[in-house]
Amino acid sequence: MSKVYLKNDDMPKQWYNILADLPTPMDPPISPFTGKHVTFDEMKAIFPPHLIEQEMSIQKWIDIPEKVLDVLSIWRPSPLIRAKRFEELLGTPAKIYYKYEGVSPAGSHKPNTAVAQAYYNKINGIKRLTTETGAGQWGSSLALACKMFEMECRVYMVKISYYQKPYRKSFMRLFGAEVIPSPSEMTNSGREVLKRNPDSNGSLGIAISEAVEEAANRQDTNYALGSVLNHVLLHQTVIGLEAIKQFDIIGDYPDNIYASCGGGSNFGGIAFPFLEKKLKGIKDVKAIAVEPSSCPTLTKGVFEYDYGDEAKLTPIMKMYTLGHDFEPPAIHAGGLRYHGDSPIVSYLYNKGIIGAESVQQSEVFKAGLMFAQSEAIVPAPESAHAIAAVIKEALRCKETGESKTLLICLSGHGFFDMGSYDAYLDGKLSDYEYPEEAIQESLKHLPKI
Amino acid sequence: MSKVYLKNDDMPKQWYNILADLPTPMDPPISPFTGKHVTFDEMKAIFPPHLIEQEMSIQKWIDIPEKVLDVLSIWRPSPLIRAKRFEELLGTPAKIYYKYEGVSPAGSHKPNTAVAQAYYNKINGIKRLTTETGAGQWGSSLALACKMFEMECRVYMVKISYYQKPYRKSFMRLFGAEVIPSPSEMTNSGREVLKRNPDSNGSLGIAISEAVEEAANRQDTNYALGSVLNHVLLHQTVIGLEAIKQFDIIGDYPDNIYASCGGGSNFGGIAFPFLEKKLKGIKDVKAIAVEPSSCPTLTKGVFEYDYGDEAKLTPIMKMYTLGHDFEPPAIHAGGLRYHGDSPIVSYLYNKGIIGAESVQQSEVFKAGLMFAQSEAIVPAPESAHAIAAVIKEALRCKETGESKTLLICLSGHGFFDMGSYDAYLDGKLSDYEYPEEAIQESLKHLPKI
Repeated sequence: MSKVYLKNDDMPKQWYNILADLPTPMDPPISPFTGKHVTFDEMKAIFPPHLIEQEMSIQKWIDIPEKVLDVLSIWRPSPLIRAKRFEELLGTPAKIYYKYEGVSPAGSHKPNTAVAQAYYNKINGIKRLTTETGAGQWGSSLALACKMFEMECRVYMVKISYYQKPYRKSFMRLFGAEVIPSPSEMTNSGREVLKRNPDSNGSLGIAISEAVEEAANRQDTNYALGSVLNHVLLHQTVIGLEAIKQFDIIGDYPDNIYASCGGGSNFGGIAFPFLEKKLKGIKDVKAIAVEPSSCPTLTKGVFEYDYGDEAKLTPIMKMYTLGHDFEPPAIHAGGLRYHGDSPIVSYLYNKGIIGAESVQQSEVFKAGLMFAQSEAIVPAPESAHAIAAVIKEALRCKETGESKTLLICLSGHGFFDMGSYDAYLDGKLSDYEYPEEAIQESLKHLPKI
Repeated sequence: MSKVYLKNDDMPKQWYNILADLPTPMDPPISPFTGKHVTFDEMKAIFPPHLIEQEMSIQKWIDIPEKVLDVLSIWRPSPLIRAKRFEELLGTPAKIYYKYEGVSPAGSHKPNTAVAQAYYNKINGIKRLTTETGAGQWGSSLALACKMFEMECRVYMVKISYYQKPYRKSFMRLFGAEVIPSPSEMTNSGREVLKRNPDSNGSLGIAISEAVEEAANRQDTNYALGSVLNHVLLHQTVIGLEAIKQFDIIGDYPDNIYASCGGGSNFGGIAFPFLEKKLKGIKDVKAIAVEPSSCPTLTKGVFEYDYGDEAKLTPIMKMYTLGHDFEPPAIHAGGLRYHGDSPIVSYLYNKGIIGAESVQQSEVFKAGLMFAQSEAIVPAPESAHAIAAVIKEALRCKETGESKTLLICLSGHGFFDMGSYDAYLDGKLSDYEYPEEAIQESLKHLPKI
C-alpha cells in the first residue's frame, strides 16, 4: 500500500510565491522595444491584469480563486506514490517516491496553470487565447482549460511535434481548439522563418513568436504561456505544496528532488515549496533540474539577458540561455526543446541554491522503460529525464549503502508518446552530440543590455 | 469539490461473488468435446486451479491475495466523481456520478482482473499467458500484469484494431508482450478463417480461438480471458464495492447504474455489489447494460447455449448470443464487438433483474464529446456508450423534474482512441443498420444441446 492520497479539502488554497523569499531581488525583464524595464501597461497587450500582478508580485501567499480550485479538483490532489518495485529493480536502499501528475485530464502537470490563466482572462472579458506547444501537452491543457470557461483557443504547434504526435492534435481539436503547425504562414514571424528555412522543424521559440504576435494584434485575444514566467511557476506550486502534506502524513521528507526542466514549470512546481524551508534554514533539500544533453540550457548555457522567442517580441529576461535563435535537434521530448529557462530557476541555479544535470536521450528511454516495467506507469519522455537522473543517484546509494529519500516529479504519462518508445525499442533512437558550434553561434546574438 | 477518494486501506479486501445470491442456480457450461458438463480437469488445460475454483464457487466473499492488492493499490481505489458540469450542460435536475477506471496504468478497468489472473497462474508455476484483445485494453492490461509477475505474454489482437490502434500495440510491446494480428497463420483456427476469408477483419471470437488453441497445446502456457467468465466479473467487483463506500461517505445512493456491455465485465464489476442489496430486498437499483446497436447481444440476441468462440474450442455457455460465427461491423468500440455475453449478466437480464439498452455509434461519439468538453475527461468509445444512455435518462428527468441519482461506470479513457474521435469530427463515422440477416444466419449455427 504505497500510495498517499489527500482529500479534496486538503488541496492548497494558496499558491506559494518564492519571489518573497529570495535573498536578493531578481533582475527585471526588459522591453525589446524600449530597452527599459517592462511596464505593466506594456504587458497588458497580451496578459490580463491579475496575471501581470502575479508576475511582478512579491507577496508570499496568493489565494487560488474558488472557480479555479473547482476545476483543479477534477484530478487534484494528485497521488504521491512510493516506487517500491522500481527500488527493488535497482536494488537500492534509497526510498524513491513519485508525485504523479499524469492523472490530469491532459495527462500532465500543465493544466494546473492553464486553468488559472484561462480563468483570469475570462473574468477580464477576453474571448480568445493563443499559445504555442511543443510535445502538445501545454496546448492540450490550454485547449481544455479554455473549453471549461467557454473561450476560444488557437495553438501554434512546433511542426516536428505536429507530425510526430497526431493524437495530441486530435485531443486539442476535441476540446474545440484550432491547431496550426509552426512556423506557419499566418504571422510575420512564421513567414520570416519559412523564408530563411522552408524545411524548418520549428521550435518553441518560433511558435511563441507567432502566438504572441497574433495576441498583440487582436483586442479580444490574449496570449498564454505554459512555462518560464513567474506566474506560471507560481500556479504549479500546488504540486510541491501537496507533496509536503503527503510527506507529513507518512513521516518522511525528501533529501533530493528530481524534475525535468525545459522552461522550468514542473521543476518549480514541485521544488519551490520545499525550497521555502531551505531558504529559511528550516530543512535542507537538494533540488535537481534535469535537462536533455541536446538542449543543455542550465548546464552549458550562459546566465545573460536574452529574448524569450525567436522573433524578439517577448521581454528580454535574465536567464540561462543557449541563444534565442538556437534550434535544438528534434529529440522525442518536445517539451524540453527550449533555448532558455525560467528566470527564477536560472537565478536559483546561479546562486547555487539548486543543482542541474543533463542526460542523453537513450538513457532517458531506458529509464522510462525500466520505470514502466516495474511501476506499470509509462512516463512521458520529458518525465523520464528525471527518472534517468534518479537512477544514477539510487545506484550511487546502492554502493554507499545510503537510504536517502528521493522524490521525482512524474510530470506526465507517455500514452501519446508510444511512437517514440517504439523508435527506442527498434533501436532507431540516436543520442545527440552536444551541439557546441550551433550554441556558440547562437550565443553571438544575445541582445546588448 | 466533487471527487470522493478512498484511502488505500479502504480498498475492498474481498471480492463479491453474486452467484451466492442468485434466486436459482445457473445452467452449467458444457464441454464442446464431450457434450457433458465441463469438469475441473478439463478446465485445467488452460486455467490454474484457483481460477477454476472461483469460476465454480458459490462462496459469497472471496479473499483478495495480498500481492494482488499490492499491485492494485498503484491506482486503486479509483475516484468517484460528481459530473456537475455535465449536469449543467444537460440542464438536468438529475445527479450524475462517474466511477473513473481510466486512472489505471492501462487506462481502463481491465487490469483489475489481469493482475489477479497473472498472480494465480504465476503461483501455479505457469510461465506464459496467451490472450485475445479487441480495442487493445485487455491485451495492454494482461501485458502489464504479466510483467509485474515476470511472466511472458502473447496477445492475439483483432486485426481491425491492430491497424486502427497502433499505440495500443506499442503499449503491449513496451511491457514485453508479443502482439499478433488475428486471424493469424500461427494457429489452426486462424488458418481456417483466413482460408474462408483472407480479408477478415477478425473478431473477438476468432482471436479467443487462437489464444485458447495455443494455450491448450503448451504445458507452460495458460490462457487468460478479459471478460465473460464468472471469475473475471468476480475480480471486477472491486469497482462497485468501492463505489458503495464512496456513496456512503457522501450520503447518496444511485437509482440507476449505467455501464457499457461487451462481455459484461465492467457492467458486472460496478453493478453486482449494488445488486446484492437489490437481491436481498435491502435497496432497489436499476442497472442498465448498454451495448452498440451494431452488436446488440442482449437486446436482439437469443438466450441459448452457444460457443464462446468462432472455432468451438471454449465451453458452450447459456447466454444471450448473436451466434458464435456472427462478425459484427468494424465499429470504433472494439471492446464491445463480442457475439455473446457473460452468462451471469445474461441470467440476470433474462430474469428481469437488470435492464439493457442499445445505442448508435453517432450517439456514442456525440455523448463522448459532450462529456469531454464539460468534464475534461475523454471517455473511451466503449465507456461513451454508458454516457449516451445516461444522457437520455437525464433529459427525461429534465422533463419530469426528477432529481434521480445516476451512476456511470467510466470504464476507460480515450487517449488511444483519438483516431476515432477524429473520424467522428470529420463526419466520417457512419451508423450501422441492425445486421438482421447476418444475425439470423449466424443463429442457425447454435449447438444442439
